[in-house]
Amino acid sequence: MTKQIILKSRPTGKPTTDNFKTRLIEVPQVADGEVRLAAHLFSVDPYMRGRMSDAKSYIAPYQVGEAIVGGLIARVVESKSKNLKVGDYVMGRLPWQEEMVIAAEGLQKLDEKIAPLSYYLGILGMPGLTAYFGLLDIGKPQKGETVVVSGAAGAVGMVVGQIARIQGCRVVGIAGDDAKNDYLLKELHFDAVINYKTTENLEEAIALACPSGVDIYFDNVGGEISDAVITQISKGARIIICGQISLYNATSQPFGPRIQPTILKRSALMQGFIIGDYSARFSQGLRALTGWVNNGLLKYKTTSYKGFESLPEAFMALFEGKNLGKLIVEV
Amino acid sequence: MTKQIILKSRPTGKPTTDNFKTRLIEVPQVADGEVRLAAHLFSVDPYMRGRMSDAKSYIAPYQVGEAIVGGLIARVVESKSKNLKVGDYVMGRLPWQEEMVIAAEGLQKLDEKIAPLSYYLGILGMPGLTAYFGLLDIGKPQKGETVVVSGAAGAVGMVVGQIARIQGCRVVGIAGDDAKNDYLLKELHFDAVINYKTTENLEEAIALACPSGVDIYFDNVGGEISDAVITQISKGARIIICGQISLYNATSQPFGPRIQPTILKRSALMQGFIIGDYSARFSQGLRALTGWVNNGLLKYKTTSYKGFESLPEAFMALFEGKNLGKLIVEV
Repeated sequence: MTKQIILKSRPTGKPTTDNFKTRLIEVPQVADGEVRLAAHLFSVDPYMRGRMSDAKSYIAPYQVGEAIVGGLIARVVESKSKNLKVGDYVMGRLPWQEEMVIAAEGLQKLDEKIAPLSYYLGILGMPGLTAYFGLLDIGKPQKGETVVVSGAAGAVGMVVGQIARIQGCRVVGIAGDDAKNDYLLKELHFDAVINYKTTENLEEAIALACPSGVDIYFDNVGGEISDAVITQISKGARIIICGQISLYNATSQPFGPRIQPTILKRSALMQGFIIGDYSARFSQGLRALTGWVNNGLLKYKTTSYKGFESLPEAFMALFEGKNLGKLIVEV
Repeated sequence: MTKQIILKSRPTGKPTTDNFKTRLIEVPQVADGEVRLAAHLFSVDPYMRGRMSDAKSYIAPYQVGEAIVGGLIARVVESKSKNLKVGDYVMGRLPWQEEMVIAAEGLQKLDEKIAPLSYYLGILGMPGLTAYFGLLDIGKPQKGETVVVSGAAGAVGMVVGQIARIQGCRVVGIAGDDAKNDYLLKELHFDAVINYKTTENLEEAIALACPSGVDIYFDNVGGEISDAVITQISKGARIIICGQISLYNATSQPFGPRIQPTILKRSALMQGFIIGDYSARFSQGLRALTGWVNNGLLKYKTTSYKGFESLPEAFMALFEGKNLGKLIVEV
């Protein structure tokens, strides 16, 4: 028997512990081509909130009564696959279970020599690739341009800012905590930071931090922070819509200032994307990210929760803006 | 002496006759390199509303007490230029005056043999080029895709729809008048039309007219019409922000449903542009448009007002949705 966490009910607004339930399930025998895995590092990510609703989206909703599924790094504890042996670490989109039996095919074998395992959920995983393709492919940053990133201390945001610095841009980070901002400024060498929770006039603060306007806005949060940034975009600006975490828990249609007149006046571009759009080019992105990690140009932070049963709590913490960098749960 | 129309005061909300004033001014002698022009066809365009305000935009505001400036086709009545002779027709950004003396340099000489003069203000002028580059360059229409155009019976919209048809797309036009929609359907062969004024549930009507979603939305109007269209965009949709005429007379910041979550979920692109962004490629656009006009693939309509003093009235009519095709004033 092993523990499994299911979606007990769809959240209305912010998820609560009531939306989750832990239960015991049988783990089947390992058949040919399969492996038995012991969970090691779970990834909790904002996009999973979307899957908890049944609204039309780019990804199918979770089913009530079934296991939550997400990114997981696990250790092979029994193998009937030629390609994986006991002790190997693998990554996949896997259920919230302590143990599971799964087809070996489709699992990605990880190499601990290249990077610490947790990196594969962060800077060398989906968040890193999201930052890489969103910023470089959509944003097309030019040397000397000003890049603003919201959710700057998050799993994606801190990579965006550092890649923008590597491209020779001025980087302004927006986050909701002075300690996080300190880290961005001192450790990651952002040019300026804004604490949206303590700044009285956000629009003015952005204008001050971006004297020649915002050329690229990498948006992880949406809502009023984005309203303020968009007032400051320059001619030909690019707005990358990566996340809208401030709206994911909305219980009714969110309203805000209409942005099309500004998009028009500034001949600006806004582009939404999901990382799956770039799957054919993941290896290119990973090569670049690995290179920057190895030569010290990219640093990364992980916030980890301990214990399988802390998964719901860790997930809910995403919406409190508590995490610095990638949020994971270690079993 | 000649008549000149000046901006008497900046409009608050909808422009009224009180914002304009006709006065008599001296016309100077013609110096070397100059010509004297008699106004023939004035272009009145929605973008001019923006210049009547003093808000930051892509084009400098008109000054109160000075002549309104816009597109004009005029006849040379006296010439001290080697390049222009009496009787020639020229086009330029010129003041609202019956007669004027102006440097010949910078005026575009028009050829009546290629097309009727009025076409140079419409299908072979800025509106035609706007439709051409907006749709093809930003929209990148593919055969079989569905294109929705708002302001479909306007100077730009009717060209957009026809070019989309030439590209093999399904074309759905939105306009506010049954007679206009009849014209789009029967004369311009749009696949479907929606009268936004008489349709109770616009979102539903768009969903019905676009069973596989909206791949390209060419937006001339903004506001609630666009809200409804955006709910129906398909994965990878392109939204071209060409105009926002429903908002140009707003006296406070317009609010509406936030669109970024939809842009994100559908990996959609939104791009604002002004035709000046494409000036280096005007001749390419004009060649294509002229070709389509000559072989009958592109039709065009002009609504004309008569008499110099009807300029303010004609301009104000733009915001009433009264015009079919390009609105001009004939002197």
